[in-house]
Amino acid sequence: MGKKRVMVPAQEVDLSIVKYEPEAIQAPHLTGFLFKFFVSIIEAPVIGSLLISYLKKKNKFIEMLRNTEIPEAPMFKPEFPPQEPEHGVVTLHEDGKPEDRVESALKCLPDYDLPGSWNGNQDPPFKYWKIRDYAYAYRSGLATPSIVAERIIPIIEDFSSKKPPQPLLISFDAEEVRKQAAASTKRFEEGKPLSILDGIFMAIKDDIDCLPHPSKSGSTWMHQVRSVKKDAVCVSRLRSCGVILLGKANMHEFGMGTTGNNPNFGTARNPHAPERYTGGSSSGPAAIVASGLSSAALGTDGGGSVRIPSSLCGVVGFKTTYGRTDMEGSLCDAGTVEIIGPIASTVEDVMLVYAAILGSSLANRNSLQPSAPCLPILSARDSLNALESLRIGKYTTWFNDVNSTDISDQCEDILGLLCKAHGCRMVEIVIPELQEMRNAHLVSIGSEMLCSVNPDCEDGKAARMTYDTRTSLALFRSFTASDYVAAQCLRRRGTLFLP
Amino acid sequence: MGKKRVMVPAQEVDLSIVKYEPEAIQAPHLTGFLFKFFVSIIEAPVIGSLLISYLKKKNKFIEMLRNTEIPEAPMFKPEFPPQEPEHGVVTLHEDGKPEDRVESALKCLPDYDLPGSWNGNQDPPFKYWKIRDYAYAYRSGLATPSIVAERIIPIIEDFSSKKPPQPLLISFDAEEVRKQAAASTKRFEEGKPLSILDGIFMAIKDDIDCLPHPSKSGSTWMHQVRSVKKDAVCVSRLRSCGVILLGKANMHEFGMGTTGNNPNFGTARNPHAPERYTGGSSSGPAAIVASGLSSAALGTDGGGSVRIPSSLCGVVGFKTTYGRTDMEGSLCDAGTVEIIGPIASTVEDVMLVYAAILGSSLANRNSLQPSAPCLPILSARDSLNALESLRIGKYTTWFNDVNSTDISDQCEDILGLLCKAHGCRMVEIVIPELQEMRNAHLVSIGSEMLCSVNPDCEDGKAARMTYDTRTSLALFRSFTASDYVAAQCLRRRGTLFLP
Repeated sequence: MGKKRVMVPAQEVDLSIVKYEPEAIQAPHLTGFLFKFFVSIIEAPVIGSLLISYLKKKNKFIEMLRNTEIPEAPMFKPEFPPQEPEHGVVTLHEDGKPEDRVESALKCLPDYDLPGSWNGNQDPPFKYWKIRDYAYAYRSGLATPSIVAERIIPIIEDFSSKKPPQPLLISFDAEEVRKQAAASTKRFEEGKPLSILDGIFMAIKDDIDCLPHPSKSGSTWMHQVRSVKKDAVCVSRLRSCGVILLGKANMHEFGMGTTGNNPNFGTARNPHAPERYTGGSSSGPAAIVASGLSSAALGTDGGGSVRIPSSLCGVVGFKTTYGRTDMEGSLCDAGTVEIIGPIASTVEDVMLVYAAILGSSLANRNSLQPSAPCLPILSARDSLNALESLRIGKYTTWFNDVNSTDISDQCEDILGLLCKAHGCRMVEIVIPELQEMRNAHLVSIGSEMLCSVNPDCEDGKAARMTYDTRTSLALFRSFTASDYVAAQCLRRRGTLFLP
Repeated sequence: MGKKRVMVPAQEVDLSIVKYEPEAIQAPHLTGFLFKFFVSIIEAPVIGSLLISYLKKKNKFIEMLRNTEIPEAPMFKPEFPPQEPEHGVVTLHEDGKPEDRVESALKCLPDYDLPGSWNGNQDPPFKYWKIRDYAYAYRSGLATPSIVAERIIPIIEDFSSKKPPQPLLISFDAEEVRKQAAASTKRFEEGKPLSILDGIFMAIKDDIDCLPHPSKSGSTWMHQVRSVKKDAVCVSRLRSCGVILLGKANMHEFGMGTTGNNPNFGTARNPHAPERYTGGSSSGPAAIVASGLSSAALGTDGGGSVRIPSSLCGVVGFKTTYGRTDMEGSLCDAGTVEIIGPIASTVEDVMLVYAAILGSSLANRNSLQPSAPCLPILSARDSLNALESLRIGKYTTWFNDVNSTDISDQCEDILGLLCKAHGCRMVEIVIPELQEMRNAHLVSIGSEMLCSVNPDCEDGKAARMTYDTRTSLALFRSFTASDYVAAQCLRRRGTLFLP
């Protein structure tokens, strides 16, 4: 009683007195039999919800969603408020052909520098082949997609036959890849490549449809209840650019976790340190790019699932703006936070892949009315550099709240590079109510995920999920509808804090 | 187990084989002590949720939200899909002055016919004074707003002092009304009325802010935790047209019921049969209009709260399109179904009031991008009548599923009138999955209502709510977040069935 808390409107929050509070989680550390026993308890009818309630209360989680008067109206989906036109950018046509958008993106890039070693200079230190490196090699006859395929295939097979298996791809068909490579090779022989992406190898996260593979979302049974009839929209756009689709990349089961640990198929390892996690949920996509086997991959991201594994694997992941990529043909096509985003070894490759896959769905175009997508012009030498107008917000206390200063120092260096080499401006900011936003996000994504698997859970499939997933689902089941609505009020609130 | 149900996409549903299923509710009929005891049980921690679960299971309610694979993506708010331009209508300017919009609406009306009795003809049978009747009387010196006020005030006071009290208004200040009437009278004396609505008496539902009254939403305590600082946007628009605001009309507590029964202040009675309910939740607004004391009233409607009492009281209620009326300053300003809508004795009066109050909020304009509002031109004699292009859908088996054929016969007559006198076309339609839509609606509105009162419930205010409200809240508390998301999938589905 007497617990009501009233928030002042976001615009009236005095950011100068906001104090950063590190997150403190109290939860039992359980493994093995104890963990399995714990899961069966939290799944039990009455006692389960009591235990979950107790754990949530201990962490003050949810409580705030019920006792807080939030002055903002709910925002159920990200919105596109009116925006000033940007300078130094090229607008891409959502309705145009993917090949044409890729061509536009190509023109945004700085001049292509041939890798030093190809000019007979001394070998550079380890360096990823960029899309333009492959493109150059194919066009100059240095290599063909079929030759590259024969180098890649045995390595991919090797990852799956390790003991324990560490598959980068959980659905892979060498013959299918050879066929695509041969077709691409033929196009080059005929001098008719489809785009700069022709013959470029890419992997697709297992929750995005890509023929002829099943979509299991990292589970053992999803393909039994949902068959794949055609490529996802994003995948078909890549295919029409001539991309060679390697197969379905490993992931955290149903994307419900950020380690990438997958007991169903084995866990992809971090290529830079095989005893470490890749991060997740797009573990396979990030790992296969980081290992140099695939120029790019498509992942899905609703709460870091592209960004986390990309960071942990040292590659570039792009969380596209909500609604920019058509989710049709992905397993998270009904959520309010998920996007499909590219992972690649460089920013320029991300730009090329993004240009190919972007284009919002008709439904989103009607309801969200997204602004036109654009890319920064990085090729202009003298003209205004698009990056110069960027301000990068940095919340230093939060930025530094990491396990080791190794991490924050590295990130600091990158920020410095962006400012010094590209003229970006760094701005110190404060993000209040981080814990509230985390809660709101978890309630949103969790409820939407639960909604999508609920019918199968009712059908007895829950027992065939990993204990990890089952723990998450038990938590998600405890969210009430009014928690969900309150979370959406916080979602709007999060967009309104003014510096 | 084995209970999963898969819906085919809405567009593929064969409407020709849809069978109408009358709703069957199984619930205990409880009154007095037993009812109070029941409420305390369903509010108890563990046993309460078990009992609610049992009752929901018995009624197959909710179950379908959990075991059904719904192919449609969630639609959290009504959308404005692209639409063909309409003929025979006048577009109103949302950003313009309310007085100008009322002037435009006035031009849409057929010529004004003076009531017969005013010309010395014989008295007509009972007939409501329309807004244009008052306007004529004020302009021709037959009456003044002050004279009318003195006739209305004692009758309103009389309703509240009945035993038991049957207040039409639950906040009323006779002196305040006299002051407004005097100001309006003065404007007429000076020949400067503000609009056709000047001097017109209107009542405002208690969940819409109207100075100097508190907003209690029919409860005993809401005004203690939420003070009124200014008029709601819709009310201020009326005020700038010269409307005389009578006070705050009675309602079902928090709008959480459709009878209008209000144990806190006494229950407004149906003016046509005082032993009957008015319907709700906008009970007071409908009753005060039906009693002839007020030309119009503003109600709120999220699930029939304007439409139901208007029908039961024999007046005209208009559920405006979602987003057309700005909800700022109402207690249901954060919902996804509620609107503010006018109640009046005639369609023409509804048009005039609607013209005054309409105009979407900036937030809705950004996110929903509503089409421009318009009114049908009813004045044109020879030109195409706007009503002729209308098709009225009728689902006959559902239409006839009423307690008495008296009701369906009356409704049939009205439909006949619309077709014969105004050239509308009646089309037989089928609405599938009515029960699913009802569930989806209840989960949506219930969860949003609970979210808005939750902080006060946590603060101990629940005990000061009516048992009726507490029963609803206990049900709403049982809705999970994933039920809410599934309900939004059904919401989109409901818009996609094609004949």
